[in-house]
Amino acid sequence: MTGNSFGMLFRVTTWGESHGAAIGVVVDGCPAGLKLSVKDIQHELDRRKPGVSEITTERKEADEVEILSGIFEGYTLGTPISMLVWNKDIDSSPYEPLKDIPRPGQADYSYHRKYGIRDYRGGGRASGRETAARVAAGAIAKKILAASDIQILGHVVEIGGIRARETGFDELKKNADQNAVRCADLEAASRMEQLIKEVKAEGDSVGGIAEIIATGVPAGLGEPVFGKLDAELAKALMSIGAVKGVEIGAGFKAARMKGSEMNDEFYLQEDRQISTRTNNAGGILGGISTGAPVVCRIAVKPTASISKPQRSVDMEKLEEVELKIKGRHDPCICPRIVPVAEAMVALVLVDCLMASVMDNFISKKE
Amino acid sequence: MTGNSFGMLFRVTTWGESHGAAIGVVVDGCPAGLKLSVKDIQHELDRRKPGVSEITTERKEADEVEILSGIFEGYTLGTPISMLVWNKDIDSSPYEPLKDIPRPGQADYSYHRKYGIRDYRGGGRASGRETAARVAAGAIAKKILAASDIQILGHVVEIGGIRARETGFDELKKNADQNAVRCADLEAASRMEQLIKEVKAEGDSVGGIAEIIATGVPAGLGEPVFGKLDAELAKALMSIGAVKGVEIGAGFKAARMKGSEMNDEFYLQEDRQISTRTNNAGGILGGISTGAPVVCRIAVKPTASISKPQRSVDMEKLEEVELKIKGRHDPCICPRIVPVAEAMVALVLVDCLMASVMDNFISKKE
Amino acid sequence: MTGNSFGMLFRVTTWGESHGAAIGVVVDGCPAGLKLSVKDIQHELDRRKPGVSEITTERKEADEVEILSGIFEGYTLGTPISMLVWNKDIDSSPYEPLKDIPRPGQADYSYHRKYGIRDYRGGGRASGRETAARVAAGAIAKKILAASDIQILGHVVEIGGIRARETGFDELKKNADQNAVRCADLEAASRMEQLIKEVKAEGDSVGGIAEIIATGVPAGLGEPVFGKLDAELAKALMSIGAVKGVEIGAGFKAARMKGSEMNDEFYLQEDRQISTRTNNAGGILGGISTGAPVVCRIAVKPTASISKPQRSVDMEKLEEVELKIKGRHDPCICPRIVPVAEAMVALVLVDCLMASVMDNFISKKE
Amino acid sequence: MTGNSFGMLFRVTTWGESHGAAIGVVVDGCPAGLKLSVKDIQHELDRRKPGVSEITTERKEADEVEILSGIFEGYTLGTPISMLVWNKDIDSSPYEPLKDIPRPGQADYSYHRKYGIRDYRGGGRASGRETAARVAAGAIAKKILAASDIQILGHVVEIGGIRARETGFDELKKNADQNAVRCADLEAASRMEQLIKEVKAEGDSVGGIAEIIATGVPAGLGEPVFGKLDAELAKALMSIGAVKGVEIGAGFKAARMKGSEMNDEFYLQEDRQISTRTNNAGGILGGISTGAPVVCRIAVKPTASISKPQRSVDMEKLEEVELKIKGRHDPCICPRIVPVAEAMVALVLVDCLMASVMDNFISKKE
Repeated sequence: MTGNSFGMLFRVTTWGESHGAAIGVVVDGCPAGLKLSVKDIQHELDRRKPGVSEITTERKEADEVEILSGIFEGYTLGTPISMLVWNKDIDSSPYEPLKDIPRPGQADYSYHRKYGIRDYRGGGRASGRETAARVAAGAIAKKILAASDIQILGHVVEIGGIRARETGFDELKKNADQNAVRCADLEAASRMEQLIKEVKAEGDSVGGIAEIIATGVPAGLGEPVFGKLDAELAKALMSIGAVKGVEIGAGFKAARMKGSEMNDEFYLQEDRQISTRTNNAGGILGGISTGAPVVCRIAVKPTASISKPQRSVDMEKLEEVELKIKGRHDPCICPRIVPVAEAMVALVLVDCLMASVMDNFISKKE
Repeated sequence: MTGNSFGMLFRVTTWGESHGAAIGVVVDGCPAGLKLSVKDIQHELDRRKPGVSEITTERKEADEVEILSGIFEGYTLGTPISMLVWNKDIDSSPYEPLKDIPRPGQADYSYHRKYGIRDYRGGGRASGRETAARVAAGAIAKKILAASDIQILGHVVEIGGIRARETGFDELKKNADQNAVRCADLEAASRMEQLIKEVKAEGDSVGGIAEIIATGVPAGLGEPVFGKLDAELAKALMSIGAVKGVEIGAGFKAARMKGSEMNDEFYLQEDRQISTRTNNAGGILGGISTGAPVVCRIAVKPTASISKPQRSVDMEKLEEVELKIKGRHDPCICPRIVPVAEAMVALVLVDCLMASVMDNFISKKE
Repeated sequence: MTGNSFGMLFRVTTWGESHGAAIGVVVDGCPAGLKLSVKDIQHELDRRKPGVSEITTERKEADEVEILSGIFEGYTLGTPISMLVWNKDIDSSPYEPLKDIPRPGQADYSYHRKYGIRDYRGGGRASGRETAARVAAGAIAKKILAASDIQILGHVVEIGGIRARETGFDELKKNADQNAVRCADLEAASRMEQLIKEVKAEGDSVGGIAEIIATGVPAGLGEPVFGKLDAELAKALMSIGAVKGVEIGAGFKAARMKGSEMNDEFYLQEDRQISTRTNNAGGILGGISTGAPVVCRIAVKPTASISKPQRSVDMEKLEEVELKIKGRHDPCICPRIVPVAEAMVALVLVDCLMASVMDNFISKKE
Repeated sequence: MTGNSFGMLFRVTTWGESHGAAIGVVVDGCPAGLKLSVKDIQHELDRRKPGVSEITTERKEADEVEILSGIFEGYTLGTPISMLVWNKDIDSSPYEPLKDIPRPGQADYSYHRKYGIRDYRGGGRASGRETAARVAAGAIAKKILAASDIQILGHVVEIGGIRARETGFDELKKNADQNAVRCADLEAASRMEQLIKEVKAEGDSVGGIAEIIATGVPAGLGEPVFGKLDAELAKALMSIGAVKGVEIGAGFKAARMKGSEMNDEFYLQEDRQISTRTNNAGGILGGISTGAPVVCRIAVKPTASISKPQRSVDMEKLEEVELKIKGRHDPCICPRIVPVAEAMVALVLVDCLMASVMDNFISKKE
């Protein structure tokens, strides 16, 4: 069934297989009059792009985006924006032997069971490569959000058990995008990078935790009771391949807190604005943003593709086999997921921001 | 904007305020020919109902459901099923003084900011009472799932730091619904209950973790790349008021695992079926069910309504105040969220099960 | 499958069978802060209500609406508005003999084939009674539209071949709702009424054409290329039971015109506004409103329920039978469809009006 | 807002401007395992393609479709199918002078009012060229329908007042696609062609009526009460640029019939199937297909682009002007709309056919 669209007002439809001709996205609902260029998109794609450091996959994709519609003389038309990236550095040969052998932890087996047919080359539609389309769409969303002073910042807070110390927002902003692991605690970052290299040498992989913070989010975003902001964020983030958990604000820690600890008390700022000093709620109460920063964390599992031998089953011959995956893979996908997670958060926020305009459709009761 | 519907094929629309005339739900898309009675629904509502034990709110609601349409001579017609529960034990007086004072951790402030108007009585639309409508709809979903041998079982695994030991599925099934905290480890259950009573005595509240397991889920459910089964579950569960985190399978633990530990290797069962011995994936790979049990856990925050004094701000007078909440509240909402979470998982699964029929729409390539 | 919701931003879900407990509607997406009372709804329901004149069905329903949620102290909350009307004057006895015999021109046969089960009493879900729910929702839509000076006016232009002469808008407004056939040409109205009585005496029924005009519609409503204003109107109007045709502006006459006759030329009004002197487009170009009145016409078939003997087939016994329908029916449904068609037009317009706010989301390029 | 997607289960999203880089479509929800090649799509595109006869526009577009995703080794994967057609024979020069002058009967003015910006070259998004994407998607729909023995056949029944005589289905099938006007009455076809040439010589254009018949449609398609088959067809057909009216079965003629004439009586066929001898219902009762052929007719207005001088207003200078349109246009678009209308009917039917599978989700009550 249909499942390749996301969003209601800012609606994104992605398409493409990893080793097909191209991957792409159609953005429907982007308002007219937005200044938009290829450069805006390319900048974000470059942040996600493979082959840029020692700890990412060796697949080299220029990932140059083309915009095929929806823009005229540098501005959006209000019509669908179609973007694509051609697949270029394709080597399907390592996948031939895996045609009938599902890789543990990958989508091979479940796709086979669901569709009865699958493009086994490079993971097909289930490849992380699909997320390039999300990042392209997210770049537009970010541009719209930026015009409303909403900023989205992702960073890695933990890899293989190594935790970053808590950093202030300015430090985050300064450091997070400056190292290969996208961790703002530079000392931890260097240990994380070291660990990833070791794990790679073992033919293994490692997981981590990333955090996405959105600042400048106005109060009032989110559509109860099912389209709550946190519910949409959870869906958006959990729809990223390697994500196994999502938490908002205090998250799982909340389960061990008392109400008197968890509740963020209200106070009056000097400027007479109502605010809270703590943010255990992660900027969301009752599924609606409060005006405090929106804080989400995601658990990223270790990359499923490892070169260590693993057991599997040949689905044609129905016999157990030992499997060695070659291909080119990231030993830790967590850093590269950061821009993808940012894109998903941006898609949710822009959709909710547009929806929130409806809240003022009727001049309010005096 | 619209946000009160859930699901695409089995589509649920809930309505109602806590202290309004009634709360209810319309289920559109329930196939014709299902044997269905008020008893099927009432059974699940009774599991969620307040006022049944010492550790739940004292509000007493019979929560008797009425079915107003969609059933004829005991069978569903394929037309919308409208159900409602009248609100009876309403006492809005404790809410009058809170009209302008948002309770910390509650939706008061964010609703006020979003809508400019709110029904402050009993939490209005943001009340946990809204979940009765979900449970009613979920009861229908469960009945459909049961006909396909899909069972959903929720239980509490942790409250206020007290963890239940791991129990086998049979023990779960036998014990989980038998005690006030819905914990299958009876020894832990008794300590949890004790803790909740203590916390209640302090005028405080406490959080916990619940787990929902779905067995019998066939391989192939979930609609990549955005309608993935885990993404839909995350949205469904995070849309429940007090939930701050959702994880699937190994969840946040996956962040500390290596690929060689995390990956569930495939083997051939004696009956020549492909299976895995571990289930770190929680029954979902690439957003599609594998046939293994689907396992989700949710972090439930401590009930926001506590009688301990808290700081807040009078939004009319714009001055800080001390707040004492009276009303009637659950000191730990985690046990009562279990049937709600089960309902949400059921709604997701029935929707995905119906969608999966499309996968066989075309006779597959030989 | 789901099919009982209409609209995207102002989303209406109807439910209920003709001889079930009640019929109702949930309106999701109505903005907060709208002043709304039962009276607003009742007024429109009374216009549709049966049993008010000699030429309508004798079923007597008070059709008193109850609002169960979404309103607080006289204003909408932004939460779902649930409304219902209890079915009271039910006499299912005439339907018993028809249990297995599909009435020609009715939905009996197709419902039977689709669902395998049907509530045969009074037409069940396929009854015109379902439209009361649409009218209730439409009443809210009309109120929102009125605040933007958008008026919707329906009237009958033809019955059984008797055509009303063209009347100016003021005459329409004054006369259309004042007679039993809802025709503004009073002379024609009287002949139409006479014809309906004759046809009723014969045990037969007769069809007609109604026109719906919306004035004050701002330019810019409609969402190309599939959510065009005319496309949404066509769906909305064709979804009414007895409607077999929909046309916009010149409609089918356009098929016989030349481009030079059909095109509405632009000119500059005295107030420097761009306008057209003709309105063959019916106020819509490229699927978007132009600012001119939106004009739709619908072909309403003769009521299928006639007391003249008809041939049918007993679906159980598989033998041909002669059928005589008793029940209580309108010999011409066209006049009573007018408020329903108005409601559907209102639902489309309010949805498009809300959507059009997005067009100004970004301050336009200078 | 979003408006460029159509369908719920077989979901089509089109994009592209007439003089942009390309136009295209993403089909989400096409089931896996369908044998599909470029040739299947190209065949339908060739039927719509401009520049093939004396009575169509002179723009010459090869309209060669590329499939970029969703197909693997000749079969659909169940993932989105992305298709595009590059725009090649572009000459935007005739549009430069019209930048600020809306052409009567075109979407220029309404797009300008809605979006504040528009791609004026070749009609931009409002161009008939957009329908190539619909035809490409429709080709897939037709292939799926054909596997269920559902055939869709469009033909022209009237042009400029010249009516074709009624022809049997076999004659239709044989003749309709064999002449430039797509009329199965060859004698009328030749008169129509003559008229179009005369009108073209005058610098004018002419309208017409086309009929689309779907045979083999099983009983049970359509989702009351808003997703009725006729409602969806009306939307689908009215969403085509030049269409001003849609009717089903007897259509507007029904308005002049009595119930005893209109109702299609049921009888028992020799093979014991229930059927009707007449088909005034056009194969749809209560919004659900009956098993009889589904019959729709559309009123197509004369092409708005005519070379005769017309009055308009310069929107920049705010002064009235005389306008002469150059460009390349069809003097009668009706014949070229036939494959587009077929595509839209196919999209509706495939969506409803897929939805109807849900009707048998539960084994029916005995």
